[in-house]
Amino acid sequence: MDALNPQFEMIGKQFVNHYFQLFNTGRNELASLYKDVSMMSFENDQCKGTNQILERLNKLPQTVIHKCLSLDIQPTHNNGILILVCGDIVIEENKPLKFVRTFHLLPSMTGEYFIFNDLFRFCIN
Amino acid sequence: MDALNPQFEMIGKQFVNHYFQLFNTGRNELASLYKDVSMMSFENDQCKGTNQILERLNKLPQTVIHKCLSLDIQPTHNNGILILVCGDIVIEENKPLKFVRTFHLLPSMTGEYFIFNDLFRFCIN
Repeated sequence: MDALNPQFEMIGKQFVNHYFQLFNTGRNELASLYKDVSMMSFENDQCKGTNQILERLNKLPQTVIHKCLSLDIQPTHNNGILILVCGDIVIEENKPLKFVRTFHLLPSMTGEYFIFNDLFRFCIN
Repeated sequence: MDALNPQFEMIGKQFVNHYFQLFNTGRNELASLYKDVSMMSFENDQCKGTNQILERLNKLPQTVIHKCLSLDIQPTHNNGILILVCGDIVIEENKPLKFVRTFHLLPSMTGEYFIFNDLFRFCIN
């Protein structure tokens, strides 16, 4: 089997903290975490590549607070890292909603991790 | 970038239907969908390999109905397939609970897909 990154847990946790922090303080900087091969599904919207993904994320209101209630992280092949986040999301002044997000990170040629897969759903239906 | 399976959506859908059907009608047959390299997190329990995973799944009551409310599927590198299932789970006669499950499938040497990563959470806290 291909290489598994033994530091998957630490990297995954740091990544999630960084991601949700940037989401509010500098959402456009999230561009540095995606590449043109990245995919995102946000509810029923499908986006491919950094530009489309940022455009979709920027359609969300300015103030979006993510509260992570659980964080599960596993290594995937070729040093990838799979993350499942469940929690509450507060959009502007609305009441909290349950959400789930799966990130699949891969190392780039220079060794830094980027988001290859990103899937978001509200758990409200 | 490595190969992406163009049939990811069809394969992912068929897999999820097959998995949840076997879950009730022949749970031990789920063993054929895992390998010794497979990982599962079920809430806070961590399992590695087919035997541990089946043992954990068999601790659940006999009657567990999964109702999928959303199904998001993306290809990953090396012909992998990433699946996010959100829905309701009914355990015996209890009221439905929200759950989320992420499967990461990889092709085996013989080309059949198996579960490399499996992450389960209730969305209830």
